[in-house]
Amino acid sequence: MYYRNSMSSNHTEISQLGEFGLIDRLTEGLKPVNDSTAYAVGDDAAVLNYPADTDILVTTDMLLENVHFDLTYVPLKHLGYKAAVVNFSDVCAMNGTPRQITVSLGISRRFTVEHIEELYAGIRLACQVYGVDIIGGDTCASHQGLVISITCIGDAPKGKAVKRNAAKDTDIICVSGDLGAAYMGLQLLEREKVASAGQRDFVPDFSGKEYLVERQLKPEARRDIVRKLAEKGIVPTAMIDISDGLSSELMHICKQSDCGCRIYEDRIPIDYQTAVMAEELNMNLVTAALNGGEDYELLFTVPLADHDKVKDMEGVKVIGYITRPELGCAMVTRDGGEFPLRAQGWNPLAAEEQPEQNDDASKE
Amino acid sequence: MYYRNSMSSNHTEISQLGEFGLIDRLTEGLKPVNDSTAYAVGDDAAVLNYPADTDILVTTDMLLENVHFDLTYVPLKHLGYKAAVVNFSDVCAMNGTPRQITVSLGISRRFTVEHIEELYAGIRLACQVYGVDIIGGDTCASHQGLVISITCIGDAPKGKAVKRNAAKDTDIICVSGDLGAAYMGLQLLEREKVASAGQRDFVPDFSGKEYLVERQLKPEARRDIVRKLAEKGIVPTAMIDISDGLSSELMHICKQSDCGCRIYEDRIPIDYQTAVMAEELNMNLVTAALNGGEDYELLFTVPLADHDKVKDMEGVKVIGYITRPELGCAMVTRDGGEFPLRAQGWNPLAAEEQPEQNDDASKE
Repeated sequence: MYYRNSMSSNHTEISQLGEFGLIDRLTEGLKPVNDSTAYAVGDDAAVLNYPADTDILVTTDMLLENVHFDLTYVPLKHLGYKAAVVNFSDVCAMNGTPRQITVSLGISRRFTVEHIEELYAGIRLACQVYGVDIIGGDTCASHQGLVISITCIGDAPKGKAVKRNAAKDTDIICVSGDLGAAYMGLQLLEREKVASAGQRDFVPDFSGKEYLVERQLKPEARRDIVRKLAEKGIVPTAMIDISDGLSSELMHICKQSDCGCRIYEDRIPIDYQTAVMAEELNMNLVTAALNGGEDYELLFTVPLADHDKVKDMEGVKVIGYITRPELGCAMVTRDGGEFPLRAQGWNPLAAEEQPEQNDDASKE
Repeated sequence: MYYRNSMSSNHTEISQLGEFGLIDRLTEGLKPVNDSTAYAVGDDAAVLNYPADTDILVTTDMLLENVHFDLTYVPLKHLGYKAAVVNFSDVCAMNGTPRQITVSLGISRRFTVEHIEELYAGIRLACQVYGVDIIGGDTCASHQGLVISITCIGDAPKGKAVKRNAAKDTDIICVSGDLGAAYMGLQLLEREKVASAGQRDFVPDFSGKEYLVERQLKPEARRDIVRKLAEKGIVPTAMIDISDGLSSELMHICKQSDCGCRIYEDRIPIDYQTAVMAEELNMNLVTAALNGGEDYELLFTVPLADHDKVKDMEGVKVIGYITRPELGCAMVTRDGGEFPLRAQGWNPLAAEEQPEQNDDASKE
């Protein structure tokens, strides 16, 4: 263990507070910031009021210890932050704004009140940064590891919610940020975990790779891109967030929109640190960018007519175009060849379909 | 094991289908029935449209194997039904109607596709009975036991959502149905589990106690009471559903409404089978009714002026009245004495506060 989850000097047993005492402590001082939050924590259900001219968006994600996260190297505060943000990202992927979350926690006996406060501090920080209200949840004992289940509610102007199923032939394919860094961050953390085994005062070496670690431990939802699209008057024809890898997500859009696609290998945005790390680990860089997952960038399609509007958008790159379905989904390689895309994303329920490099290539 | 969770003749490994294949199979043929469900399963988030004149209600519950349920005697279909219904009950407790749920499942390797289909069949049945739409969820591998996290969204006419915090001195306290049966059902199931240990073809003896088993395994949310209240033009001043026991829930209302209460021992509704079982197990019947939990009946307060309206309501019993806070919370016993109420409900996070009879006296 080379971070400080277990180094808190205070250890209050959760049994000293009980369920209601713990909830009171975790939710103390919460003040709703959204007009749509009429009544938050403290009753059988929260009460929301949304105006009739909004599309209300609902998404949910469950995170299980040792499946989705490894507390050996994930600080609880970061875990809380990330658990909230991955839900915000799903709302952003619908062209929406996250507004409320419920937080359910299953807590095993090895966690103290201070541990759960750390976790919750991360959730609260994410909510503060994104202007989201915590409106309820459930807290219970777990006989196993830590369980986190978050449901997020958000909104979009009526009719402006963007699904995955309306991409059209000739649409342009765009992606925000850069890809593969979160996956490389995971490789780095795993490597340092192995190196640290049995050493009490191990100091991991992340120098020059801080970006990779941050992308893995503290991802952000691209709410800024949603805002910029609105400012420019662009409503994407299809949008999805990249949790399982570019390849997998692009195939979701193509399947649900009944179309094919071409993306260009040399247009896939990759950070310098990602490339260095791939070299160091002797991994195929493009494979990592295509299948790594957990980037939480936005992948979207816009009509060809919007090309001029998107081509100069900061933080957005045009990487290809939508085709008729019979042309299939493929990447045009640097040498001009075509490489069929495969959905290699995270799928622990289908063990045999794992990416080659790592069982945990990406998480949802 | 004396039921058929493990007796299915088909065994399809979940890895054969993968996450997306499993979700497709579970959600096949789902058709939304509520106008507010604009777009359900299949995207980053569901899309809902609620009119502006509604209060939107949101509640969530997490169920963990061996904490909230024991698969030795809980059939998976019943478990699914109950997992959905306990959420519906929370919406009813706000004077609302459940409309949508998201379903997140953590599934360990010992479950087959057929097992999860059984579980989901129970969830779908509950949704069909209550007119609720399944709008999304998350399905992932669990290294531990089965994890079920459900979030329910519902509605009430604007301003008609009933919280816990507005009971007033002289209000009448009402409860629906009868109490303690679910707890006695649990005792019975635990007894038969012990008796069945190691016997392959054990047939449990539930004769004459079917009601208790049903109350434990297949509870219902009292939507009918919510409807009757609306028909009679009654808006309760406070309402809560009884998941942790009458005593605990009544104290929630009194604490949040800043008041006291008196309830009458001889007015607490108890079924004949519950009484027989308590006698058989040599347990205090009133303690079971006060603290047993999992009844999912509605406990509510109405102004004294509504007394005539509620006193003849089918399935509702007047059990006491609200007082000024300085009088505290107490039960008036049959001999005219006063017995202070204590919140003895389920609290596995505070082990020392367990009810005397059983660690699992009630679950949330």
